[in-house]
Amino acid sequence: MKLSQGVEWGLHCAMLLAQVPPGGLMRRDALAGHFGLPEAYLSKHLQAMTRAGVLYANSGPKGGYRLARTPESITTLDVVEAIEGTAAPFICQEIRQRGTGASSPEECRRTCMVSTVMSQADEACRASLRSVTIAELVARLPDSVRTRNAERLPQLAH
Amino acid sequence: MKLSQGVEWGLHCAMLLAQVPPGGLMRRDALAGHFGLPEAYLSKHLQAMTRAGVLYANSGPKGGYRLARTPESITTLDVVEAIEGTAAPFICQEIRQRGTGASSPEECRRTCMVSTVMSQADEACRASLRSVTIAELVARLPDSVRTRNAERLPQLAH
Repeated sequence: MKLSQGVEWGLHCAMLLAQVPPGGLMRRDALAGHFGLPEAYLSKHLQAMTRAGVLYANSGPKGGYRLARTPESITTLDVVEAIEGTAAPFICQEIRQRGTGASSPEECRRTCMVSTVMSQADEACRASLRSVTIAELVARLPDSVRTRNAERLPQLAH
Repeated sequence: MKLSQGVEWGLHCAMLLAQVPPGGLMRRDALAGHFGLPEAYLSKHLQAMTRAGVLYANSGPKGGYRLARTPESITTLDVVEAIEGTAAPFICQEIRQRGTGASSPEECRRTCMVSTVMSQADEACRASLRSVTIAELVARLPDSVRTRNAERLPQLAH
């Protein structure tokens, strides 16, 4: 089981956009350049975050990205789900109903315990990601990084 | 992010083997037949569970599988990690140290918050899986399924 590298990209971009002065837009090439990322590939993830309502995108010559909501209202989970999708990682194929040992439909009225236990673990993971906002991630950046961004980002944004 | 179907297969096989009379071995074809699974593909997962110390395998004409330990001491996580591996799903590529906005080595002495938050979610997921044993999964099967297995498995095991 592996997460796409887009998760790291998406979270860092959301944290950076949270530090852009209110109303400012940051162009895709500026975002890619800030982290040394391939712009075309980053674009795919920025679009996914826009579709998921995490980013607001303005196209055209003055185009760019900003957070669609306050960084206090965007959770780590919002970004992870924007990139990875919301589908559960475990897909139950109901093998308990197959083969020579098959359980009857009556015996399968309750959800299979295997499926239940896997769903609970998935929810524990999501709850953990949901408990941390983008604003909190930014607050835990080293002071010097936030100070540098506060000086640099007004020039990069428009 | 997706888990292999082997996770469902492995958990159900471990639950079934927990119901075999003590010392009994169950052949691979009997396990596959019980759940209607392709034997060759199931074999791969049974071998992974054996390597991980979840199953004990006896080869030869009288060969077969049994749990390597008591079902009370095998957790859902043991089986999931046997099938999926123990690697963390999030691989941090330290993009904070790249590009025009790169943080300095001094600013990166502490682990990146993005990496920390992803590790915490991974650990929450594993803790959830670790909290449920194979014995508990078996105990929550419908009574009729356990009764049928208690009648059937002594004939299938050897």
